Amino acid sequence: MKHLLVIGIGAGNPDYITMQAVKALNRVDVFFLMDKGQRKHKLIDLRREICERYITQPTYRFVEAHSPERERGDVDYAISVDELNRARQQTFERLINDELADGQCGGFLVWGDPALYDSTVRILQAILAAGTCVFDFDVIPGITSVQALAAQHKVPLNAIGRSVEITTGRRLAAGQASEADSLVVMLDAEDAYQRVADRQTEIFWGAYLGTPDEILLSGRLADVADEIERVRKAARAQHGWIMDTYLLRKP
Amino acid sequence: MKHLLVIGIGAGNPDYITMQAVKALNRVDVFFLMDKGQRKHKLIDLRREICERYITQPTYRFVEAHSPERERGDVDYAISVDELNRARQQTFERLINDELADGQCGGFLVWGDPALYDSTVRILQAILAAGTCVFDFDVIPGITSVQALAAQHKVPLNAIGRSVEITTGRRLAAGQASEADSLVVMLDAEDAYQRVADRQTEIFWGAYLGTPDEILLSGRLADVADEIERVRKAARAQHGWIMDTYLLRKP
Ligand SMILES: C[S@@+](CC[C@H](N)C(=O)[O-])C[C@H]1O[C@@H](n2cnc3c(N)ncnc32)[C@H](O)[C@@H]1O
Ligand SMILES: C[S@@+](CC[C@H](N)C(=O)[O-])C[C@H]1O[C@@H](n2cnc3c(N)ncnc32)[C@H](O)[C@@H]1O
Repeated sequence: MKHLLVIGIGAGNPDYITMQAVKALNRVDVFFLMDKGQRKHKLIDLRREICERYITQPTYRFVEAHSPERERGDVDYAISVDELNRARQQTFERLINDELADGQCGGFLVWGDPALYDSTVRILQAILAAGTCVFDFDVIPGITSVQALAAQHKVPLNAIGRSVEITTGRRLAAGQASEADSLVVMLDAEDAYQRVADRQTEIFWGAYLGTPDEILLSGRLADVADEIERVRKAARAQHGWIMDTYLLRKP
Repeated sequence: MKHLLVIGIGAGNPDYITMQAVKALNRVDVFFLMDKGQRKHKLIDLRREICERYITQPTYRFVEAHSPERERGDVDYAISVDELNRARQQTFERLINDELADGQCGGFLVWGDPALYDSTVRILQAILAAGTCVFDFDVIPGITSVQALAAQHKVPLNAIGRSVEITTGRRLAAGQASEADSLVVMLDAEDAYQRVADRQTEIFWGAYLGTPDEILLSGRLADVADEIERVRKAARAQHGWIMDTYLLRKP
């Protein structure tokens, strides 16, 4: 039997790693590194750094795999992610079949928590359902960027007894967000907070959370939205990429 | 200046603790233990165990404070939580003023993550706004029961490109949940999943997650809801209390 571990490493600060994740790291024979695109090198470096820091018997090896990129632009989001995941599924099958011997343990290091806007778990379940590889797997939770955001701003996510919705910039921009009075927005490529009608809404915005480059801004949209847009644009230009998340709270 | 640390310790498994939390634990001079009610002893024991396990220089002390209980029954939920928080605020003010010297560090150990259905951060912000004590504070995120649930069931929280709403059993029972296709329900005292109209909805249910008493059940509501209700009732009778969480996914 082959065993896989999907390990959440937290979203930014290397100290977000849990004891459970450290124990899991130490069981892995082969780490599969799947990052792609501009952030590739920075994020792969962070994974290597985490392994060096926390693994006591360095007998593991890394296998880097080309991870197909999502088609951008004017294509249906769910469909393109779906196609992408089929291509990734083939990559995963190849890795599990070719790079892992029976009795060995393979590891996927997932940014933040594997349950939130990440495809690793969904792909492994699809492979098991298809029966193309034989393995079992475990999931190790990690601190999400949502939690990093709330902690760094020192705010609760929910209002007393109320709901929180976690959604995407795409959905917010398309008017598909719910009426929840607390809304967390991830994966926003288009400054969707500028489309929120009630400008008295409070925003808690954070970029590169938990890293030395962290930026935090908060206030009423009427007062800070334009500043956020400016800062965001400048940061993206400076770093070549940006990862940011925000909480919107109704007045 | 007095410094406070609000430290998320994860929701069940002591290995959910992060490196950041371990470092924070080791800075604390006085831990404030605030648990109440039936679960009191079990949860306070777990906090003491975490301190014993992870603190290398045991020079800290514990102060146990009576934490007022919420009025149950036929009262408005938000109002009763509000009154409770005012009473707690006075308790916190007393602890910070009387139990902590200038330059010392006080610690609150919060179950799961401090940002999710926990009042500690809100109360500290209220005290700072009222100006009745002088201190600063930091928040350390922790693994929530929501993440433990997803990890143990090995499922993603969100469908591809879709939203997730985190809500309460009270709101679900009152028909106040959103249309999100993934709904996480916490604080359910009344088997609210039995009121969900579409019985083809999938449920992923977990109790005492991350602990040796963990129970997991999943399936279509039509097939498993009654079994969950039975198991839940029996577990609550056996332990004297229950903590459970579930994910509902639309068909
Ligand atoms: C593909 S999702 C992965 C989320 C990840 N699994 C988690 O648990 O946070 C990527 C999105 O997460 C958010 N994100 C991840 N890391 C972040 C960070 N350090 N600071 C701000 N946002 C971050 C951004 O919204 C980004 O677009
Ligand atoms: C007052 S809230 C606190 C939530 C906590 N701050 C967190 O991050 O999970 C308590 C609710 O959390 C959920 N919960 C906490 N720990 C749990 C566990 N180990 N297993 C299942 N549910 C849990 C239950 O829904 C419970 O009613």
